[in-house]
Amino acid sequence: MKKTPEEYMRLALDEAELAYQENEVPIGAIVVLNDEVIGRGHNKRESTSLVTSHAEIEAIKEASKKIGSWKLDNAEIYVTIEPCPMCSYAIIDSHMKKLYYGAKDLKRGAVSKLDIFNQNLGKKVLVCGNILEEESREIMERFFKDLRKK
Amino acid sequence: MKKTPEEYMRLALDEAELAYQENEVPIGAIVVLNDEVIGRGHNKRESTSLVTSHAEIEAIKEASKKIGSWKLDNAEIYVTIEPCPMCSYAIIDSHMKKLYYGAKDLKRGAVSKLDIFNQNLGKKVLVCGNILEEESREIMERFFKDLRKK
Repeated sequence: MKKTPEEYMRLALDEAELAYQENEVPIGAIVVLNDEVIGRGHNKRESTSLVTSHAEIEAIKEASKKIGSWKLDNAEIYVTIEPCPMCSYAIIDSHMKKLYYGAKDLKRGAVSKLDIFNQNLGKKVLVCGNILEEESREIMERFFKDLRKK
Repeated sequence: MKKTPEEYMRLALDEAELAYQENEVPIGAIVVLNDEVIGRGHNKRESTSLVTSHAEIEAIKEASKKIGSWKLDNAEIYVTIEPCPMCSYAIIDSHMKKLYYGAKDLKRGAVSKLDIFNQNLGKKVLVCGNILEEESREIMERFFKDLRKK
């Protein structure tokens, strides 16, 4: 059954919560194709020791395994924080049609810093921000507050 | 023993040749730390079905496994073709100090299209282009010429 963008973002927030519990920067993502969740992921850079283990890449990897291709035409991705340039280009280059994100990342977000989705780097990706923005930001603030206490 | 940039790029070209033999877009990369090659990679997107399987990411993954961290401070990366935004940000975010590339990619290269290494997205990466540029371009042209014949 088709969900609203907020309902899908709630699933991405569940992934962010898993990252939080694993002491990873709490960002989560899901990939949806034809109203079905085909990939889930959360940031696990510390546990994998890989720079690419961002939530979006983890979700994209799971989705690609599921459908057997790096081309995710017509898929949508939901991510709790505005993606960095690495993840943004992975979204463009896997031919996804739409990106929904929660809170902005003014320091390294590729929408805010580079307007990357309007640079003719590949197929057009529609971008929709500020979905469950407050919750997406709150879990990040909670994580970094905890970290400063330690 | 310390090699010249051209000698290191020759190793990246060896990786590109492996990709060529595997019917993958022939791009190769190596990661060097303290004059030692700690990662090698070539494009294998078709065989892995993963959008992230660019040469640079494969080389970075191998390097990170070798040193047990996603932080590759002071490492250098050599890649036969100017990196895309995904790989460029992986280079920035893994704290590498220098990028050497062979031929430009005017369509989706992140140096040419976004000037990505001068956008204050993280630590400063020095960039040096046109190392064995002709050989790096020639193997790409050969690949796409073969492809059109098929």
